[in-house]
Amino acid sequence: MSKAMEMHEKWRGKIEIAVRSGVSTAEELAIAYTPGVAEPCLEIQKNPDRSFDLTRRWNTVAVVTDGTAVLGLGDIGPEAAMPVMEGKAALFKAFGDVDAIPLCIRSKDSEEIAQTVALLAGSFGGINLEDIAAPRCFEIEARLKELCDIPIFHDDQHGTAVVTLAGLIGALRFTGKDKKTAKILISGAGAAGCAIAELLFADGFEDITIANSRGLITGDGDYSSDRLNALAKITNKRNVVGGLAEGMVGMDVFIGVSAPGIVTADMVKSMADKSIVFACANPTPEIMPDIAKSAGAVVVATGRSDFPNQINNVAAFPGIFRGALDARAKDITQEMNIAAAYAISSLVTDEELAADYIIPSSLDLRVAKVVAAAVEKSWKILDKM
Amino acid sequence: MSKAMEMHEKWRGKIEIAVRSGVSTAEELAIAYTPGVAEPCLEIQKNPDRSFDLTRRWNTVAVVTDGTAVLGLGDIGPEAAMPVMEGKAALFKAFGDVDAIPLCIRSKDSEEIAQTVALLAGSFGGINLEDIAAPRCFEIEARLKELCDIPIFHDDQHGTAVVTLAGLIGALRFTGKDKKTAKILISGAGAAGCAIAELLFADGFEDITIANSRGLITGDGDYSSDRLNALAKITNKRNVVGGLAEGMVGMDVFIGVSAPGIVTADMVKSMADKSIVFACANPTPEIMPDIAKSAGAVVVATGRSDFPNQINNVAAFPGIFRGALDARAKDITQEMNIAAAYAISSLVTDEELAADYIIPSSLDLRVAKVVAAAVEKSWKILDKM
Repeated sequence: MSKAMEMHEKWRGKIEIAVRSGVSTAEELAIAYTPGVAEPCLEIQKNPDRSFDLTRRWNTVAVVTDGTAVLGLGDIGPEAAMPVMEGKAALFKAFGDVDAIPLCIRSKDSEEIAQTVALLAGSFGGINLEDIAAPRCFEIEARLKELCDIPIFHDDQHGTAVVTLAGLIGALRFTGKDKKTAKILISGAGAAGCAIAELLFADGFEDITIANSRGLITGDGDYSSDRLNALAKITNKRNVVGGLAEGMVGMDVFIGVSAPGIVTADMVKSMADKSIVFACANPTPEIMPDIAKSAGAVVVATGRSDFPNQINNVAAFPGIFRGALDARAKDITQEMNIAAAYAISSLVTDEELAADYIIPSSLDLRVAKVVAAAVEKSWKILDKM
Repeated sequence: MSKAMEMHEKWRGKIEIAVRSGVSTAEELAIAYTPGVAEPCLEIQKNPDRSFDLTRRWNTVAVVTDGTAVLGLGDIGPEAAMPVMEGKAALFKAFGDVDAIPLCIRSKDSEEIAQTVALLAGSFGGINLEDIAAPRCFEIEARLKELCDIPIFHDDQHGTAVVTLAGLIGALRFTGKDKKTAKILISGAGAAGCAIAELLFADGFEDITIANSRGLITGDGDYSSDRLNALAKITNKRNVVGGLAEGMVGMDVFIGVSAPGIVTADMVKSMADKSIVFACANPTPEIMPDIAKSAGAVVVATGRSDFPNQINNVAAFPGIFRGALDARAKDITQEMNIAAAYAISSLVTDEELAADYIIPSSLDLRVAKVVAAAVEKSWKILDKM
């Protein structure tokens, strides 16, 4: 038996409930339960917002999945998704002190999933969507943003985009490139690829091209989603036609959220000077770091912890929710996501910045703190506008 | 500000998440999260029952309400119900070591609530329904028993019935009365009253009469629910007509789950010798204990902690779920409820048994343990049949 299986058998669950109030004496029970509890109940009845003061709602996030796009494992079902969701909840607590409750839903119907979550929204301060296959993940996120007045965040899209942007900020700093002129190729037009493109545009990047498994996205193409059709209109400015090989020529940055091993050394060689390669397919990158470096890449990042420059969502979601909860934000906006990315990057000083250190370790406990502060501040500015 | 409000403001939630697995080093993360977590996921995909070994499901119960019948407060809404649900979750953990997750649902539609809970059933080992108004609570419970293969328990019905039966066993022991001949009057024909009548019949009681606010239930009456119509056929054997005053005459036992102050001293005086009065309306009983005793009642119980013989659900639900979870039971049956009641009562020895001590303290930590053992054993016998 592997160490991971052995430990999961031993833990029998990676999270549990802890009690914050005394409930062992008659006096304690009279305060935490009947009859004392009636008073906070009536207070919240008068003003439901008080549930954020008098219950754990202010600190509690639902981690919601349908189990259809779990890790690289695909559609394994809600029960089988639970070990990942529990791991996520453990990370939420360890890095952001957020109480996360995993809810694995037995449905593959977007509207049914959205309604189920919306009916529970009064119990939570935020909703983190996780490992839901496209296009349902987009539909559910959009629908929940309509139905709920608490932050909705699809980590596979926005968490990935935030950490990618954070890494990119570091890589541009290191190579002296500028976001207004840097030529970016994103390989992967799914949830993560689209979200990365949108966040980069929102931050002021101007020259982005997207490739999917059929080739480069072009303005005159007709694609499977409204979202990709919208991106097609504003990407691929030089209207390059072809596949990844054609797309990579002259690019400053390659961002892969696609498939293992699809990038060759020759493709990297065709990139611009001081090229940047983020090969984030998991567990096997689009190109192995040593090959990319030999082919001329100055900065290489992956999704893996066993190489330098890990692009790992754990740098984003605990701090983003910590900040959103602290601000009692009603949404998580692109401004907040951008603030999170710059906060992550800010922890790498100019002295520390290096080809192999463009982003802080995802285990660095300072990360969630600076992200939370930046996200909270960003919401407060937006909220006043 | 009251002490209860002050403490709720201070706690900001009576429960929180605790992490059981290490997630602070790269090695720990590789075991608890990616890539190690993939293996337990795939194991559960092959056999969803393994979610009871490899995740916290085996120990996790959803505490579900729509906030429509909270304590004596009525329909205060899902957010306002949360302080009670958190209190309940704290009791689940403190007394039964059960991880309970409060889910307050924004719906008053039985089918919608049942579907919402059923879609989440893969994340839980059991469902505790709580503070849902009748008749929805019956409809939701019945529907969930159809839809789910995990135990469904409506505490306001079955928890109350179990503890009432436990108290009654002690009271009959003390007074030397027998369940086959004891004449029982139940005041209250709602969820609790019906559940008590059904459980007493299941345990072999034979002479039960039910009264609601309009008077005694009779076999030729037509009542609001199928359930009460069914009970009408087998209760009130002497076909007594009238109100509570007529119903109390000659009764051995009065069980009130009804309204404050509706029982007079004269009514108690009209009861049989060595009468037993359970006046469980909360917070004000049907008759105050001192008045009932002066009128001749030998044993008096209430729902309150400030009088002897408290009939409190906390004696039942933590142990019942502990036992059901330990047995991995698919249901909680009347046999299991009866086993729980006798287990509670068994903690009062013949030497200890007294008019003011017919049931152990609800804070006695032995209670959940003996209840759990009895419930687990009961399921295992049923499961083999």
